[in-house]
Amino acid sequence: MTLPSSTQHTDPAPLTAATPVDWTRARREMAAKTKPLGALGRLEDVAMRLAVLQGTLQPRVDRARVCVFAADHGVAEEGVSAYPRAVTGEMMRNFDRGGAAINVIAAANEVEVEVIDVGVDADLSELKRVRHEKVRRSSRNFVREPAMTPAELTAALAVGQAAADRAAHDGVKAIGLGEMGIGNSTAAAAILSAFSGESSAVTVGRGTGVDGNAFARKRVVVDRAVRLHLGAVDGIGRGEELLRRLGGLELAAMAGAARTAAAHGIAVVADGFISTVAILCALNMFGEADRTGTCPLRTALFFSHRSSERGHRLALEMCGSIAEVDPRPLLDLDMRLGEGTGAALAMPLLRASAAILRDMATFTSAGVSAGQLAAEHSTSRPS
Amino acid sequence: MTLPSSTQHTDPAPLTAATPVDWTRARREMAAKTKPLGALGRLEDVAMRLAVLQGTLQPRVDRARVCVFAADHGVAEEGVSAYPRAVTGEMMRNFDRGGAAINVIAAANEVEVEVIDVGVDADLSELKRVRHEKVRRSSRNFVREPAMTPAELTAALAVGQAAADRAAHDGVKAIGLGEMGIGNSTAAAAILSAFSGESSAVTVGRGTGVDGNAFARKRVVVDRAVRLHLGAVDGIGRGEELLRRLGGLELAAMAGAARTAAAHGIAVVADGFISTVAILCALNMFGEADRTGTCPLRTALFFSHRSSERGHRLALEMCGSIAEVDPRPLLDLDMRLGEGTGAALAMPLLRASAAILRDMATFTSAGVSAGQLAAEHSTSRPS
Repeated sequence: MTLPSSTQHTDPAPLTAATPVDWTRARREMAAKTKPLGALGRLEDVAMRLAVLQGTLQPRVDRARVCVFAADHGVAEEGVSAYPRAVTGEMMRNFDRGGAAINVIAAANEVEVEVIDVGVDADLSELKRVRHEKVRRSSRNFVREPAMTPAELTAALAVGQAAADRAAHDGVKAIGLGEMGIGNSTAAAAILSAFSGESSAVTVGRGTGVDGNAFARKRVVVDRAVRLHLGAVDGIGRGEELLRRLGGLELAAMAGAARTAAAHGIAVVADGFISTVAILCALNMFGEADRTGTCPLRTALFFSHRSSERGHRLALEMCGSIAEVDPRPLLDLDMRLGEGTGAALAMPLLRASAAILRDMATFTSAGVSAGQLAAEHSTSRPS
Repeated sequence: MTLPSSTQHTDPAPLTAATPVDWTRARREMAAKTKPLGALGRLEDVAMRLAVLQGTLQPRVDRARVCVFAADHGVAEEGVSAYPRAVTGEMMRNFDRGGAAINVIAAANEVEVEVIDVGVDADLSELKRVRHEKVRRSSRNFVREPAMTPAELTAALAVGQAAADRAAHDGVKAIGLGEMGIGNSTAAAAILSAFSGESSAVTVGRGTGVDGNAFARKRVVVDRAVRLHLGAVDGIGRGEELLRRLGGLELAAMAGAARTAAAHGIAVVADGFISTVAILCALNMFGEADRTGTCPLRTALFFSHRSSERGHRLALEMCGSIAEVDPRPLLDLDMRLGEGTGAALAMPLLRASAAILRDMATFTSAGVSAGQLAAEHSTSRPS
């Protein structure tokens, strides 16, 4: 009679030698907790990952924040969305008044929300709760030309990096990457097609709800854009160049935020399809630094939910493969809204996981006899 | 171009004519919110169910509570568990000190915990935070005799009913049904086998972690107990009699709590395998009252997580079939601990869902143009 071994997980690359908590120590601490080994399933993996990321066996996620990066997309003029482009700006006013889904979900779960205008094609200067960091009014239509100039890409990345720096300064321990932008599921699909080699049949979904002619148009637009730009991209800096040509300003900001948040030891919580594609760009752009340096995006990465948007599965699998982590998100609730709503819903799971490792009694401290029993069984296991 | 229809769900039986909020009103309100129809997936169903249950379009789950019903089991003397029976009492001390998984997970998510001794075979009288409502020290060994006498069953059901009454008095809006009791996955498997006609091959899992000889013994015990008792149970009152013969004191308390909580309009949140089997008993025992009276357990029922314990899938499917509700739990995290941990983790999802219906702006109130657009598209949809 033996207790089953803990659930499987892929170890990320070890951090620097100075890291005070590694997976071995985290695993030993988890095994001492008053519960059968592995009985808290995936939460145990989340807890151990947070411990390694934060460098402590007492991880905390007291402050969690969702950053909603917003921008318009030139490609929206191709008629690829169920909603008019004006909705991006209208939703920014809705965020500002606290009436959108992300506002109420975040409030219910005590998650902070920061809304950042990276490139909305509307004058939002009167909005008090929105951060105004507009790089330009909308990206360019990537069916005709690159979505951004190199300078615009750099500026958009910097907006995300600054958001991650603010989060670190404020003591935020987990950052969700949300977005708003009519047309951005088209941009994300184009990037994913370019990265994966898969056609629009695999990467294009219904976004906010297109069907019929608009859906067909969206697919044509993606395939055409990928053909136009892929030839111009060489192997080196591929992620960056694809992001510049096919991305959007908010996608670039999310990629920048992901990389910098991880470098600060902040958990990076992907939202849905668009958010995951932005992280795919970040992994591609900064992956080498991850392997050889101190930027642990692979360790910091958490997938919050599986979106019902087509393409998300492929994006998750590609991220999981590059980062060598379990590509299964924590939640699967048939959602497809964006705004960071999935990330906000996953924050309580991160908080609870941290509490398991931090606050649960051990068999020894609680005087529960099963720990000793488990150890004996483990020792007496026939080999 | 049309927006997709909302996600599917099965309507529970309508409440009484006086119910101020029905599914039609809840659905209309949800459709007006500033998001594509159905884009919040299963949270929309949760929100509408809470609205119908609470009789308001402004549902709230401010106070949520997990009740942990604890008892020992005579059948544990057959050697069906990986842990010695003393662990039930030791874990009660751990709950009392706040060191168990349910304590720290609930605290992280602002969920209250109430631990109730319904039948632990230990003197716990010095524990201050535990409610002492011991019906007797341990149920009887159901391989030899019924687990409870009729009077003991009634007393155990009443312990659960009283817990639900306290929750209602305290303004609790969602109650999670948790348990602790070495041997109780054996009892739950026996009940499920008796209800379903399936053998132990389908209903018996590893519980806290038995394998080898103990696992084989657990299966034999379940099959033998079902054969012993099933002949003595007639069709009428089948659930009650099976619960009395094969159940445990905490299983009976959970069934009583489920029924009474629902009658109070409190959301009943199932935890894992044992909790779901208790609810299956409640649905069976009180199902007719549900159909013809005012006890809406079918409306009040939420499945929190899919346990990795074998048998949970069948228990969920049977509950879903009787209650005519979606049997998919909200979470699937490879957990198998019990204690109400899954229920505690689902509470933030209920809170967030309630907030969507209660607090989100409508297209009209937010001045977002897409609502009108969606209505136009909907009207112009080719039939």
